[in-house]
Amino acid sequence: MAKSSTHFHRSKTSIFLSDGCLFLGGAFSALLIVGVFFSFTTPIPSNIPNLGSVTTKFTAAPAAACLDPPDRTFYDDPEMGYTMEKKVHNWDKKREEWLKHHPSFAAGAKERIMTVTGSQPKPCKNPIGDHLLLRFFKNKVDYCRLHGYDIYYNNALLHPKMFGYWAKYPVVKAAMLAHPEAEWIYWVDSDALFTDMDFKLPLERYKDHNLVVHGWPRLIHEKRSWTGLNAGVFLIRNCQWSLDFMDVWASMGPQTPNYEKWGKTLRSTFKDKFFPESDDQTGLAYLIAIEKDKWADKIYLESEYFFEGYWEEIVTTFENVSKKYDEVEREVRELRRKHAEKVSERYGELREKFVRGGDEVVGRLKRPFITHFTGCQPCSGDHNHMYSADACWNGMLRALNFADNQVLRPHGYMHPDLGDNGVTPIPSDYPPP
Amino acid sequence: MAKSSTHFHRSKTSIFLSDGCLFLGGAFSALLIVGVFFSFTTPIPSNIPNLGSVTTKFTAAPAAACLDPPDRTFYDDPEMGYTMEKKVHNWDKKREEWLKHHPSFAAGAKERIMTVTGSQPKPCKNPIGDHLLLRFFKNKVDYCRLHGYDIYYNNALLHPKMFGYWAKYPVVKAAMLAHPEAEWIYWVDSDALFTDMDFKLPLERYKDHNLVVHGWPRLIHEKRSWTGLNAGVFLIRNCQWSLDFMDVWASMGPQTPNYEKWGKTLRSTFKDKFFPESDDQTGLAYLIAIEKDKWADKIYLESEYFFEGYWEEIVTTFENVSKKYDEVEREVRELRRKHAEKVSERYGELREKFVRGGDEVVGRLKRPFITHFTGCQPCSGDHNHMYSADACWNGMLRALNFADNQVLRPHGYMHPDLGDNGVTPIPSDYPPP
Repeated sequence: MAKSSTHFHRSKTSIFLSDGCLFLGGAFSALLIVGVFFSFTTPIPSNIPNLGSVTTKFTAAPAAACLDPPDRTFYDDPEMGYTMEKKVHNWDKKREEWLKHHPSFAAGAKERIMTVTGSQPKPCKNPIGDHLLLRFFKNKVDYCRLHGYDIYYNNALLHPKMFGYWAKYPVVKAAMLAHPEAEWIYWVDSDALFTDMDFKLPLERYKDHNLVVHGWPRLIHEKRSWTGLNAGVFLIRNCQWSLDFMDVWASMGPQTPNYEKWGKTLRSTFKDKFFPESDDQTGLAYLIAIEKDKWADKIYLESEYFFEGYWEEIVTTFENVSKKYDEVEREVRELRRKHAEKVSERYGELREKFVRGGDEVVGRLKRPFITHFTGCQPCSGDHNHMYSADACWNGMLRALNFADNQVLRPHGYMHPDLGDNGVTPIPSDYPPP
Repeated sequence: MAKSSTHFHRSKTSIFLSDGCLFLGGAFSALLIVGVFFSFTTPIPSNIPNLGSVTTKFTAAPAAACLDPPDRTFYDDPEMGYTMEKKVHNWDKKREEWLKHHPSFAAGAKERIMTVTGSQPKPCKNPIGDHLLLRFFKNKVDYCRLHGYDIYYNNALLHPKMFGYWAKYPVVKAAMLAHPEAEWIYWVDSDALFTDMDFKLPLERYKDHNLVVHGWPRLIHEKRSWTGLNAGVFLIRNCQWSLDFMDVWASMGPQTPNYEKWGKTLRSTFKDKFFPESDDQTGLAYLIAIEKDKWADKIYLESEYFFEGYWEEIVTTFENVSKKYDEVEREVRELRRKHAEKVSERYGELREKFVRGGDEVVGRLKRPFITHFTGCQPCSGDHNHMYSADACWNGMLRALNFADNQVLRPHGYMHPDLGDNGVTPIPSDYPPP
């Protein structure tokens, strides 16, 4: 039992590494108590297992279960590799075995999300580019901390020829293989941020799917629009289907001899695609539309909430949304209570009940889950000329402060003006009546 | 039991929020199994508690235990505030009560670390400043992910008059109050990075102390040197002593009428302090040296490892350190095994056994825990003229890549040249014989 106690009084790492240890430890402790109790009250009948031998087994198992087994696992296969070129087989079985060998990660495995994001290795051309990326990254770290997700920021070009938007696929693949404990890899572009810190991905909706993007079936299958979906934010299941799909998806990329051909094919299929290079977003739309029977049934086109929200229609709504949330809080005393950040998620769930409702239509006044500054290109500064530079950077500032207010609040502060980074202490009973 | 199952199959959040739920769930499940077994094998004697009523109790308790209680907590006190001005009383008791009300955080509470860092609200003056800050932040996020620590990045000026190095104290205080689950707040400057991803803070050493900094008693008490310690990295216990100490420490800051007087006092006490303004580092040295009886016994001056390492003597050693670690790995097959990132900590513990030894003396070839680029000022670019700009930025690049290699490795890649951001896939049996 000493070993279990040590586990239970270690740092949060032991919580990270030893959830199964905790569970087993609880079970073991209970059995021990019952065994001791019974030994004092009832003679142990001969047909009941010897609790002594069970005790030894439970003492040994938790520690052993948390280490890599001495026997070979798939990681020990010298052929095993992380690159795009290395084909991976039987990944579902391998993940399952890994989870069996590491039972501390079994609890919650089916819903475990690993967030992945990143940016280029060298400094941004835009003088404020890296500053914006830093703020966007902080935002993601805040969201992940609130919901207990791991996050990995990549800033290396893993495949020398897979540049730009193609660069994310070697990262996603490496993340899958390095994180068998994660059921989902959640790619979020560097220019997307979480503007609803309460909202959690409704994973139950996606239980029969392996890839989730923001999109509209009609725009893909009928209108054949390259913006019928957005590939800047996606949830991809850590499974063999996804590895196979990414092999096909990435085969349209610049590292292959078919890159130019794919550029032409995608442009001729999606007539509103205005640039010649093969891109991952149109590529995904193509696979859904043209190789429908192979892939489409496992790809969820989510449009019932801002799985990924277009910034231009969102950024002017923040003040009205805040007003709405303040109104709700004035009605519901519980929501105004100060609390530790660690229980924010529970308060968020309560708040969700009061503000729930579709928010695809601007003006519905629910916080947009994710606001994505597509076309603004914060790093290079080469924004789409549909908008001014100011519209982009001011929009980002407002969105970042809008999100930050939700994080600052349990720390006692707020930005009273979304266009200004200044903060003030949160008044005692906020929002005021 | 349904409610418990829901908990056990939720996301990692449930692991975050429900460690006690897991333990209780394990105990409950074991009791249930035993109860069912016994009901089939032995008539339940009348003097044994009715397992049915116990079942109900265990089903209810885990969920209830994870919410804020409906009754008032200290958070509900309208006088409760997070700012420097708001005096906090009985914090130890308040934390203890909070942990009682939220038993899911009790396990591991005594060693739970919350890392806090941050930078200024506006873009850096140095054109590559924010890019460096972004990389330093990623480094911290990597370290925290590996060890299961939460991390909070602050980029708001919480007190309008507490600028520069003084800005951290309102942040640390707010973090303490918002995170009662954390035993330690770990402040790490924006220009410090983790260069040993395996190493864990030896908290057992600090069990009788409330504040840990890198420092040398002789330099403080005898030589009266302002660099007898470094205040850029510190571990501070989340307790009443620390709140009281920070009140005194921060009272030397620019938000008080005594700021200029303190500047003079600190300079006349620590003769090598060359700038006139009252600073937090000399302030801390002063409190240890001059108000020794009040504070010194609770302040640990750590010098047995690079709790915070001076970059200039470290950055030239990275290649030799890497060679040493490669040698060790060639000897110990277990260390060469590929593995999931989630078990890196266990491999790290094994590796530590082989490379353990004091590393204060350059050349001992143990990875420095933290490398701190004091004097380089990456954000403003106003580096100390003792060094060239190139020495600073190249040193940072090498340190960041040295650390990144330890993170990239379980993802299948490495920077072969520390001075270059390029990566290559890790060869199959690395390091090569």
